[in-house]
Amino acid sequence: MSVLVVGSVAYDSVVTPSGNRQDSLGGSATFFSVASSYFTDVSVVAVVGDDFKSKDIDFMKKHGVDVSGLEVCQGGKTFRWSGVYSEDVNTRETLETQLNVFADFSPKIHCEQKRTPFLFLANIDPDLQFSVLSQMDERPQLVALDSMNYWIEGKNCSLNKVIESVDLLFVDEGEARAIAGEFNLIRCAEHIMRLGPQTIVIKRGEHGVLVFHGSVIFSAPGFPLTNPLDPTGAGDSFAGGFIGYLSASGDLSLNGFRRAAVIGSVMGSFAVESFGLDRIGSLTVADIDARFRAFTELSQFQPLDERESLLN
Amino acid sequence: MSVLVVGSVAYDSVVTPSGNRQDSLGGSATFFSVASSYFTDVSVVAVVGDDFKSKDIDFMKKHGVDVSGLEVCQGGKTFRWSGVYSEDVNTRETLETQLNVFADFSPKIHCEQKRTPFLFLANIDPDLQFSVLSQMDERPQLVALDSMNYWIEGKNCSLNKVIESVDLLFVDEGEARAIAGEFNLIRCAEHIMRLGPQTIVIKRGEHGVLVFHGSVIFSAPGFPLTNPLDPTGAGDSFAGGFIGYLSASGDLSLNGFRRAAVIGSVMGSFAVESFGLDRIGSLTVADIDARFRAFTELSQFQPLDERESLLN
Repeated sequence: MSVLVVGSVAYDSVVTPSGNRQDSLGGSATFFSVASSYFTDVSVVAVVGDDFKSKDIDFMKKHGVDVSGLEVCQGGKTFRWSGVYSEDVNTRETLETQLNVFADFSPKIHCEQKRTPFLFLANIDPDLQFSVLSQMDERPQLVALDSMNYWIEGKNCSLNKVIESVDLLFVDEGEARAIAGEFNLIRCAEHIMRLGPQTIVIKRGEHGVLVFHGSVIFSAPGFPLTNPLDPTGAGDSFAGGFIGYLSASGDLSLNGFRRAAVIGSVMGSFAVESFGLDRIGSLTVADIDARFRAFTELSQFQPLDERESLLN
Repeated sequence: MSVLVVGSVAYDSVVTPSGNRQDSLGGSATFFSVASSYFTDVSVVAVVGDDFKSKDIDFMKKHGVDVSGLEVCQGGKTFRWSGVYSEDVNTRETLETQLNVFADFSPKIHCEQKRTPFLFLANIDPDLQFSVLSQMDERPQLVALDSMNYWIEGKNCSLNKVIESVDLLFVDEGEARAIAGEFNLIRCAEHIMRLGPQTIVIKRGEHGVLVFHGSVIFSAPGFPLTNPLDPTGAGDSFAGGFIGYLSASGDLSLNGFRRAAVIGSVMGSFAVESFGLDRIGSLTVADIDARFRAFTELSQFQPLDERESLLN
């Protein structure tokens, strides 16, 4: 099966305790599509300016990403974001956001993309997210959504309309609390489920993720790293691994979601290990399998047999 | 096998967002011994004043805890601690610590306790911890240690001498960083291992625990609770489940430590569900097995077979 992603393709400038990087390829749709490209066919819908480098298009093509939906706006400038990370790289401050060509972005879905079975609405204006969903010829098998506090606070009604229409929501703890108006994460997930989506994935950075799927909770650990370098794009790489695996396996059972969460965590952990797409863009099959096995080592233990007791 | 614990038996007063509790039974040795009593024989070495209620001694006895080493100091007053928890119960502020009879505590180990194979040195003055270890007739099979920032800052040399002599250290993130002088938790664990203990358990509250055992890292999740009531004693209940299970199973392999971490997390999660020892002191075998199975549900996923790949 295949995945369609609508989001940003951008140039990022970051300052981290380990160094700086100017105008490196980034954006939610870029991280997502490269991460998911290891698992599935993926098409990007986004806009860039005529300053967008051909080597960056080549990089995405090299990963098999379908860029026919990547609009190049002549005379426009590519979206730019810059930020600075704290000493422990757990928090960041945005220094500047230049929307540029993104300010007037109106995503258009090609005919051949209108029946894609998996759709990821990356973090953009919820009105645009809704317009993408409306352009689909048939309801995709799975629609997943990401957003941010900016839209939760500024376009609450529009965002709620999208949330009501999707199957799966990716949020961080602060976003979950802002949407639900609750502090406790279980109550947050229950609140959001009442709005529509039946799967809520709460991303907790180095503390891993919590997946709420119906009445079940699954926890995937964060991968302990000696030297986390740059968390930019880790959330979108997580989503790329998660949705990419679901698309490849077609397994939308609870066990499929469990594995998807671990594979998302695998891809997120790679993203943090280098600046930009350096690591996530240069993985081998063996790298991915080995990291998945490392997650198994990290979190598996001997369960109780059906009739066994811990105390006897 | 059996466990010996040296620590505090106390009366705690807490203020939490869900309510208050005055002078309820607490203390590190109390939580530890009650939690471990479900798994193994356990003896307490501690001191109380003559204000200590006979019903509280009966409570410990009812759990099979050997209280022959609980010294009652005539004319003295039992150790008291009071604190107030933040809105999310993740942090707390100590309002008052009255050492009382604990100020002159000098633990004496009975003859029949001097060959106990498992020893837990709960958070007390490191000089006292060292004196307990010195009183043992033979080196226990496993010595585990807990401490706090107060001793890390105030009695660093004494504490280091104890750390060098133990097999396992329980710490929270802040304590690990203070001991190691490093921020990254992997580096902290490596640093502490060079001091002596080969197993470092870093407790992260609602985010679970990381166990560093030789070159292996194991992560047990925090148990998601809708209504965490009072975290007092959760760390000692965790240690009680952890060491209690190791003692009962005699399994000091890597797999034993993995299970011990989950069972510790089971007991810690019960401790948080009520004030003081209300829940941890009234569990059934079925409760403990069911919570262990819930941890399995929470964290297990389908691993890769030996020759399988995620991408094919």
